[in-house]
Amino acid sequence: MIPRYSRPEMVAIWSPETRFRIWFEIEAHACDALAELGVIPKDAAKTIWEKGGAAKFDVERIDEIERVTKHDVIAFLTHLAEFVGPDSRFIHQGMTSSDVLDTCLAVQLTRAADLLLADIDALLAALKRRALEHKDTITIGRSHGIHAEPTTFGVKLAEAYAEFSRCRERLVHAREDIATCAISGAVGTFANIDPYVEEHVAKKLGLKPEPVSTQVIPRDRHAMFFATLGVIASSIERLAIEIRHLQRTEVLEAEEYFSPGQKGSSAMPHKRNPVLTENLTGLARMVRSYAFPAMENVALWHERDISHSSVERMIGPDATVTLDFALARLTGVIDKLLIYPENMERNLNRFRGLVHSQRVLLALTQAGVSREDSYRLVQRNAMKVWEQGKDFLEELLADAEVTAALSETEIREKFDLGYHTRHVDTIFRRVFGKS
Amino acid sequence: MIPRYSRPEMVAIWSPETRFRIWFEIEAHACDALAELGVIPKDAAKTIWEKGGAAKFDVERIDEIERVTKHDVIAFLTHLAEFVGPDSRFIHQGMTSSDVLDTCLAVQLTRAADLLLADIDALLAALKRRALEHKDTITIGRSHGIHAEPTTFGVKLAEAYAEFSRCRERLVHAREDIATCAISGAVGTFANIDPYVEEHVAKKLGLKPEPVSTQVIPRDRHAMFFATLGVIASSIERLAIEIRHLQRTEVLEAEEYFSPGQKGSSAMPHKRNPVLTENLTGLARMVRSYAFPAMENVALWHERDISHSSVERMIGPDATVTLDFALARLTGVIDKLLIYPENMERNLNRFRGLVHSQRVLLALTQAGVSREDSYRLVQRNAMKVWEQGKDFLEELLADAEVTAALSETEIREKFDLGYHTRHVDTIFRRVFGKS
Amino acid sequence: MIPRYSRPEMVAIWSPETRFRIWFEIEAHACDALAELGVIPKDAAKTIWEKGGAAKFDVERIDEIERVTKHDVIAFLTHLAEFVGPDSRFIHQGMTSSDVLDTCLAVQLTRAADLLLADIDALLAALKRRALEHKDTITIGRSHGIHAEPTTFGVKLAEAYAEFSRCRERLVHAREDIATCAISGAVGTFANIDPYVEEHVAKKLGLKPEPVSTQVIPRDRHAMFFATLGVIASSIERLAIEIRHLQRTEVLEAEEYFSPGQKGSSAMPHKRNPVLTENLTGLARMVRSYAFPAMENVALWHERDISHSSVERMIGPDATVTLDFALARLTGVIDKLLIYPENMERNLNRFRGLVHSQRVLLALTQAGVSREDSYRLVQRNAMKVWEQGKDFLEELLADAEVTAALSETEIREKFDLGYHTRHVDTIFRRVFGKS
Amino acid sequence: MIPRYSRPEMVAIWSPETRFRIWFEIEAHACDALAELGVIPKDAAKTIWEKGGAAKFDVERIDEIERVTKHDVIAFLTHLAEFVGPDSRFIHQGMTSSDVLDTCLAVQLTRAADLLLADIDALLAALKRRALEHKDTITIGRSHGIHAEPTTFGVKLAEAYAEFSRCRERLVHAREDIATCAISGAVGTFANIDPYVEEHVAKKLGLKPEPVSTQVIPRDRHAMFFATLGVIASSIERLAIEIRHLQRTEVLEAEEYFSPGQKGSSAMPHKRNPVLTENLTGLARMVRSYAFPAMENVALWHERDISHSSVERMIGPDATVTLDFALARLTGVIDKLLIYPENMERNLNRFRGLVHSQRVLLALTQAGVSREDSYRLVQRNAMKVWEQGKDFLEELLADAEVTAALSETEIREKFDLGYHTRHVDTIFRRVFGKS
Repeated sequence: MIPRYSRPEMVAIWSPETRFRIWFEIEAHACDALAELGVIPKDAAKTIWEKGGAAKFDVERIDEIERVTKHDVIAFLTHLAEFVGPDSRFIHQGMTSSDVLDTCLAVQLTRAADLLLADIDALLAALKRRALEHKDTITIGRSHGIHAEPTTFGVKLAEAYAEFSRCRERLVHAREDIATCAISGAVGTFANIDPYVEEHVAKKLGLKPEPVSTQVIPRDRHAMFFATLGVIASSIERLAIEIRHLQRTEVLEAEEYFSPGQKGSSAMPHKRNPVLTENLTGLARMVRSYAFPAMENVALWHERDISHSSVERMIGPDATVTLDFALARLTGVIDKLLIYPENMERNLNRFRGLVHSQRVLLALTQAGVSREDSYRLVQRNAMKVWEQGKDFLEELLADAEVTAALSETEIREKFDLGYHTRHVDTIFRRVFGKS
Repeated sequence: MIPRYSRPEMVAIWSPETRFRIWFEIEAHACDALAELGVIPKDAAKTIWEKGGAAKFDVERIDEIERVTKHDVIAFLTHLAEFVGPDSRFIHQGMTSSDVLDTCLAVQLTRAADLLLADIDALLAALKRRALEHKDTITIGRSHGIHAEPTTFGVKLAEAYAEFSRCRERLVHAREDIATCAISGAVGTFANIDPYVEEHVAKKLGLKPEPVSTQVIPRDRHAMFFATLGVIASSIERLAIEIRHLQRTEVLEAEEYFSPGQKGSSAMPHKRNPVLTENLTGLARMVRSYAFPAMENVALWHERDISHSSVERMIGPDATVTLDFALARLTGVIDKLLIYPENMERNLNRFRGLVHSQRVLLALTQAGVSREDSYRLVQRNAMKVWEQGKDFLEELLADAEVTAALSETEIREKFDLGYHTRHVDTIFRRVFGKS
Repeated sequence: MIPRYSRPEMVAIWSPETRFRIWFEIEAHACDALAELGVIPKDAAKTIWEKGGAAKFDVERIDEIERVTKHDVIAFLTHLAEFVGPDSRFIHQGMTSSDVLDTCLAVQLTRAADLLLADIDALLAALKRRALEHKDTITIGRSHGIHAEPTTFGVKLAEAYAEFSRCRERLVHAREDIATCAISGAVGTFANIDPYVEEHVAKKLGLKPEPVSTQVIPRDRHAMFFATLGVIASSIERLAIEIRHLQRTEVLEAEEYFSPGQKGSSAMPHKRNPVLTENLTGLARMVRSYAFPAMENVALWHERDISHSSVERMIGPDATVTLDFALARLTGVIDKLLIYPENMERNLNRFRGLVHSQRVLLALTQAGVSREDSYRLVQRNAMKVWEQGKDFLEELLADAEVTAALSETEIREKFDLGYHTRHVDTIFRRVFGKS
Repeated sequence: MIPRYSRPEMVAIWSPETRFRIWFEIEAHACDALAELGVIPKDAAKTIWEKGGAAKFDVERIDEIERVTKHDVIAFLTHLAEFVGPDSRFIHQGMTSSDVLDTCLAVQLTRAADLLLADIDALLAALKRRALEHKDTITIGRSHGIHAEPTTFGVKLAEAYAEFSRCRERLVHAREDIATCAISGAVGTFANIDPYVEEHVAKKLGLKPEPVSTQVIPRDRHAMFFATLGVIASSIERLAIEIRHLQRTEVLEAEEYFSPGQKGSSAMPHKRNPVLTENLTGLARMVRSYAFPAMENVALWHERDISHSSVERMIGPDATVTLDFALARLTGVIDKLLIYPENMERNLNRFRGLVHSQRVLLALTQAGVSREDSYRLVQRNAMKVWEQGKDFLEELLADAEVTAALSETEIREKFDLGYHTRHVDTIFRRVFGKS
């Protein structure tokens, strides 16, 4: 996470201020439950909410205390006591630091997930708009980077829409996975705190109680979360690379929007570099890489060790901030993408009708010509196009063996691009629902 | 995937025989649909099922053809034609190789997922049985590898049960993700084949039609699948490492079952090595690593490139076979795990009552002693235990300042292990439901 | 490692036969040293070499024994005894299984490294030949996939040559890293065996004694080895992707050699897919992924745990066999690569001289025109090329403001491609040495 | 890279101030060379050094310019011109941004490598000191976490010393790999700049000229660098995990130094958590993970794409800062490690002599008892120790069948710990040289 690739709202989730505020809320909600249970006075709980709620926590001060205590939660509680006064002794009763830390992480990750879901929604909206806009914009489909058969630019974007819809669903699952609360004490046995406290805090924070925490919330949840971010990043990479390909000098079927202020465009008008999508390719590599330490974090020793902590202090912000930035950047790219239908057409027609060779082959077979003969017929005409730059349709019409099997109308019909796009409606209905 | 770490049922899914059989079924189902649409004769479809269904495909022969054609699907179709005869020309009409390959992979992965789900079910059953058996077996909970507070061995296993229940749910999602069928032609536009064929084949094979395939099924699905396997592997690693720790010479609270035939046990009875769980640790590393190339496979070029293919030929079998083996091995380990409650008790009592120091501290605070004084009191008695091997309870009872705050009964009550386990029922209810 | 992507020589290194033969040699060399030290009779050592050397080990039989003993080395020794007779009791004295296993792995990995070094040498030879052949073949250099300035195809290949030369050097280091021998007993203290035995065996096998083994050879060595393979794989990926780009329909500056037998070429002559380099892209992902579990293997517990073993049983063959195959495949691709200088020229001239705009800009600046004015002048002429398809040179010559600063000769000179290639000799000298 | 796990000297390498200073030096050195070649006036070069050298670059100002130009190097040059005045037009002549960026990265990475080498040296010094101190401190060696045979604590540390010596050597290689300079223009052909400039700048900055750069320095170099850091991190993890194991409650053979200020120690004196080494375990996961995107960065498109840039902006600082911190932290841990020889002895004697069973077994065999009988004899006495807590030596001396084969002296001699440590000198000589 570096400023260059960060957006403020996601960064804010990981600020010390936010963290301390969440810590406070966990402690205060726990006090409510403890008061309800009669463990601490109701007045104390009220005071804690009032004075703590109004407090402006001083990050510097907390850091200062931590340097002595070498313990972040104790440092915070010490500082909180400075605001709350004597009733502060009722705070954190029967709890362990991890109760606060892990529940806080759950709150932060769910908030991060909510931002990411909104990011995906914005991306989906942009993809849908551009997909509908270019539903019928014919372009050559490519396998292996080589021309195959026609498709439409809208279908390309519809695929991306479907893919990010899946990513959205996966993120919903992943969000659910990490949305749990643990207030269960030193080894998760609720030895010093009633399970009711956990239930109460969970409810207030929109989380579910963790069925079995062992001081910590089990890290398979976080592993799944970060692995899901890695998959989403990979889908970003796919779309980014598609655009980079389309912007290649020789292809130029689409282009990232180029703001007038950007240097270099003037003297070399062809030199508009797909820097945003190249950047997204790199960011995807980063987000993906964070899945690995997250998976290694699962196997904590016994009821817990703290090896996961440094990892999460890094990848918590790094993965979510970077993915948030990447999704927003990709949305911007799609939203303003310059699309060049005329270049698509020009590229499509590059081989003067050869793109239809498969259809002609099929038609010959269906007209009763043997597979071998059909091949031979298509091949000898295709070769004239390929080697001498002839026009495929004209050559076929001039080939007596071909016209013996297929009428001119039938042959011409095989060169109809509409043939390739007649099921686009079906595809769009599948992706976007009833139109 | 190597024989040593493989089980036959999962291996069979990836055999050439299985693959060719699935290919045949895809082709034959497609023929049914094509016949229904009137594209090919109904009799032909019938013949194809009959003759192809009865055929015993010769893997050697197909390989031989492939060496010439350098194309596996064409090699198979050529071989299939040798059984079907003239009607074979109606097979594969309007389809592309990837229609067969990708749909086949979906069938293989769903079958693999079903085996893995059954594996997890078996593991869950073993975990539940042992968890209930040791629900009340008290053991020390450890954070940082250091004694913390008591818990029960059943709670440890209940956590594992809850964790693998989550893994199961994730795998169900992942299975759904890869259970799609694509019969959509060279670039996914259904140019030469009606979408109805895809719907029909999907239905017959228990798959859903892929909303937008582009010759290939998008690889974000497979990335999510293999990432999920990686997370499951990480949970296996966690439990494996727990057992390895418990089997350490100095701990010896549990032990892998040791078959009498195994060498080495006799002369060095202490030298029973947790080789199965060590092995599981290694296997987990492997399964996890396969998630990476799967994620890199997502960003195929344009409508498809074939870079994913070699990866999947390897990790398809490697990841599923290894995980299947690992789950089964772990189930065996749990099922027969030797558990030593007496050693657990001995370890727990290692520090002569010190494990209760936190409760005493809390009690003093609740009795009105200031936090600082409480610490001091607990500390000075704890130090006698730590440094001179005294008994913590006796020291406390002999400390006038302590007894001024707490009665003997109150102090003794703090040494009750039942205190720590009184919420075990709640935990078990959360995990296993109403008991 | 699957047959499709394997070559026999590398596969043979990992066969059980090879492994048992190496085990035998380790044991027999150790016997020589033990005999020299007077620990065992010299005759026994001689007998062991004679009878064991002549033995044809029966893999099935060893597997059978292992199924009972659950110990591979004991199974082998039992089988070996069947050949050697009574003197077999002098074999393996004071040694531990890992002495045999780890030293054997070192022998296998060094042999694998030697094959890989030969593979790289073959690749380097192919690259050098083609680089020299195309030293002066002008082609457009591309940054961001966009035309930049001219370079030569030979320079592209010289870069690859330099890169694989570095890979070679890294592999030499990596080979050195894993070429150690350990015959040091249960925890590496030489308790039951004199260090001289290790020195002797090491010398005989072309290895160095491991300074401190702890039953096992430390796994940082292997981690470095597999990480190095991962880097080499990444360089393969780079060159593979370069070729895939060059073979794109719209670019077509180079093409994988296409054997006449390959189907599909005839009817769609443009449809020659870069399947070999796509395949290499996938294989690179696999080899890279193996670096991860290798790094996780480093942190074995105490003097050793056996978690590394399953990983190495897989990645040992998988990584080396796959990389060997990939290097050989890449060499074949480079060796027979179809290179199309005329297409390179056509692509280069796509923008009618615009490629020289930077030089004109620089010339104007050097002629005293301010940077801003220079930009303006170049830009207004460039735009006519870009938007109206004019010729850049002609436009400049017709621009009075330009000709006021630069003479026609000076302007024309800026369109000399030789300008861009005049340092190619320097580059080649750096890479290939004195020419 | 987060402040909590950062040290100022390494952080400083990655500050904007340092970066701009290096950029300036590259530009100024290039000007010297250009002046020498007569391309720009000598006075201009002098002025640039004087005015630029004295300048205090304003990071805010550069950022501000970059927000308009969207180009960092141009922003810097614009700002530099504000100091240098009219002669600034001679700066950067014939160069491309990457010439500056990549050469700067090389300078930063070599400086980072130098710090890391110093870190390793400090760690080696600590390891050596403690290794010599505990050369003869006997401790039990453990395989599989189970007691095996005695070794010394010094040997453990000597292994770590040898391992980090290897890491040092690898880092030296990796440093060499990234220590190159590129001043070669838009596609690396030196079209607008003489190769002499590159040679001059390289020399001045302690780098070597990159044999073939293609606008960028090839990224296999950086991949190797970060992969090497990943291997070093894995060695850190190994030593960290060793210490975590030794500090386990039941083992307690060593302990991280515990500063008096740390909370929690007082009431639960057994609760000293190995938090530093747990933290190192997590940091190692992070550093290792960065190797992956670095490897993915290798396959840039054609002469360059910019996807590597975002990755390096992150992992450049993240990997080096984290590893620097981790090495320093580990050095501190080793330096002050509390080592408990008496606990080592207690653990070693846990099974009342059973640790010597292997030696007795061997002695019986060597005394002519058959392997089977030897096993049986050792086993029946071992079992009395294991099951009834008897003393192994006493049982053996009381076993007539044993004493028939071995004299009391011979048997007693097998219980001599000195037997296990008699080759420690050899090991130390191998690691630390002549003592």
